[in-house]
Amino acid sequence: MKIVLDAMGGDHAPPVAVEGGVLAAREYGVEVVLVGREEDARRELARYDTSGLSLPIVHASQVIEMEEHPAAAVKAKKDSSMVVGMDMVKRGEADAFVTMGNSGGALAAALFRLGRIRGIRRPALSTVYPTTTGFCFMLDVGATTDCKPEYLLQFGMMGAVYAERVLGVANPRVGIVSNGEEEGKGSILVQEAYQLLKASPLNFVGNLEGKDIAPGLADVVVTDGFTGNVIVKLSEGLAASLMGIIKDEVKKSLLTTVGALLSKPAFDQVKKRLDYAEYGGAPLLGVNGVVIVGHGRSNAKAVKNAVRVAKRAVEGGMLAAIKEGLQDRRV
Amino acid sequence: MKIVLDAMGGDHAPPVAVEGGVLAAREYGVEVVLVGREEDARRELARYDTSGLSLPIVHASQVIEMEEHPAAAVKAKKDSSMVVGMDMVKRGEADAFVTMGNSGGALAAALFRLGRIRGIRRPALSTVYPTTTGFCFMLDVGATTDCKPEYLLQFGMMGAVYAERVLGVANPRVGIVSNGEEEGKGSILVQEAYQLLKASPLNFVGNLEGKDIAPGLADVVVTDGFTGNVIVKLSEGLAASLMGIIKDEVKKSLLTTVGALLSKPAFDQVKKRLDYAEYGGAPLLGVNGVVIVGHGRSNAKAVKNAVRVAKRAVEGGMLAAIKEGLQDRRV
Repeated sequence: MKIVLDAMGGDHAPPVAVEGGVLAAREYGVEVVLVGREEDARRELARYDTSGLSLPIVHASQVIEMEEHPAAAVKAKKDSSMVVGMDMVKRGEADAFVTMGNSGGALAAALFRLGRIRGIRRPALSTVYPTTTGFCFMLDVGATTDCKPEYLLQFGMMGAVYAERVLGVANPRVGIVSNGEEEGKGSILVQEAYQLLKASPLNFVGNLEGKDIAPGLADVVVTDGFTGNVIVKLSEGLAASLMGIIKDEVKKSLLTTVGALLSKPAFDQVKKRLDYAEYGGAPLLGVNGVVIVGHGRSNAKAVKNAVRVAKRAVEGGMLAAIKEGLQDRRV
Repeated sequence: MKIVLDAMGGDHAPPVAVEGGVLAAREYGVEVVLVGREEDARRELARYDTSGLSLPIVHASQVIEMEEHPAAAVKAKKDSSMVVGMDMVKRGEADAFVTMGNSGGALAAALFRLGRIRGIRRPALSTVYPTTTGFCFMLDVGATTDCKPEYLLQFGMMGAVYAERVLGVANPRVGIVSNGEEEGKGSILVQEAYQLLKASPLNFVGNLEGKDIAPGLADVVVTDGFTGNVIVKLSEGLAASLMGIIKDEVKKSLLTTVGALLSKPAFDQVKKRLDYAEYGGAPLLGVNGVVIVGHGRSNAKAVKNAVRVAKRAVEGGMLAAIKEGLQDRRV
């Protein structure tokens, strides 16, 4: 298997991206094609023992930066690592593309170069979201801001395929984010999507209020890209703020400081349970190729795990399964 | 001043509601009219020394339960504590109505009995939301699920009036929830509301991403009732889940358990900083009367503080200020 890794993507690229690529090639036995500035990639690669590993470099002279306007950057930078990498997937020269870069850029590059799967109305960015019982899979978290009911139905189908084929969840429970539990609650969009999901072959468990997400009442959480983006960023902000408030209060006395030092191993475990690096990345769904997007802050372990996610998506036949899902006239 | 308190509203009514009413009458020197089943209210009242306090009872034979369908319940139960209480405000026999009951019921009763302020397009439920620096005021959190840009502009104006007149925030910063920081980011609704807010006399600070709410980047957080409801319930769920995960991990060893016991005072302070009881309740804005809705789980202290909120809203001339705000042609 041949997976293209964006050597220039992420806050700590190229060093961290290349390190993650080396770890992935070593651990998963896949060919990892590093796409990016050849000189940079070669210099980073020289720091590791890569004997026996397949880590070719494909030169791309440009980089889509984290703050650039996605569509404009993709159009202007035809020799960027994202565009060159996507084109390799398009031509069938690679099985998947993995990036820790600008997620809007990845979306734009995928739409321009790979296009959508025939029949899919809109693409969705996804994420693995930690819950008290493990994790759930959430989409859309930012690709399609204004949605129609049919888009949400397709997000549910694609999410279920991914949960089953890649995350290994049998008969995944699909829920939709709403502002009330009962059928009939929600915005007009959600009420209509509810009926479509209910009539579909999916294992639909109904509306999820905000409070139902963290306890893990669904395996696949469907929402529009606006709400999903707010949920993900709010959650990150809240967890950080709560930890900050706890630190503040703990520091106010010697006793509580000592207590916190003693209980530190427990807090380290909490952090580990919430650590995105374990999941590595999540797919851009609906585009005609396997594209995995990771967090810009990713460390080498997260990059390695994102490559694993790509490998599983290819092995699990994710694209074919989505196309098959579209054959059901209820989707 | 005369404030009507729903003696039957909330998970622990009537005992907790009546206790809160007694505390409020004692501390704030206002007349607290208890509306509800006379027998119940009288029995609870007998448990306190109420000498010198003004705590009349107004009988209402029915109760709108927490799980009832709001509009249907309000129509069917003409002698419910909510309807009877709202009618007292409508007839000018009381200055404000306070309830810890079904918030949808309070909304329906307010719309049917008090009506909207002339010129206000839609009502908004609000909440005081804790931040790392104190709190912000958020609306709508569930009254108007599907919004138009003009509604959000009016929410911003009403929120600013409330923050200034009742919460005592000078020149409050008004932000709008979006899925990106820059102008031009957001759903079509948010993009259009952004332009209206920008052109208004409000101190508009622009888009707020989910991560910008907890750090307190705005005093007034404007959003539609769907997104606001998801934010509030997600936050409650996340805080509870995170605390649950911390407890789980702490219990796994003797050392971390001892550490947690020592640092308990700090965690008690954290809880206090996040405690809704300090704020008591928040207004239902846009209706033609002062209506304060508190959390169903409220304890007596929260009920007492909700009465204080009502008192401040009356003293601050909240209604008149909202009507004045509508005179500006930009709102």
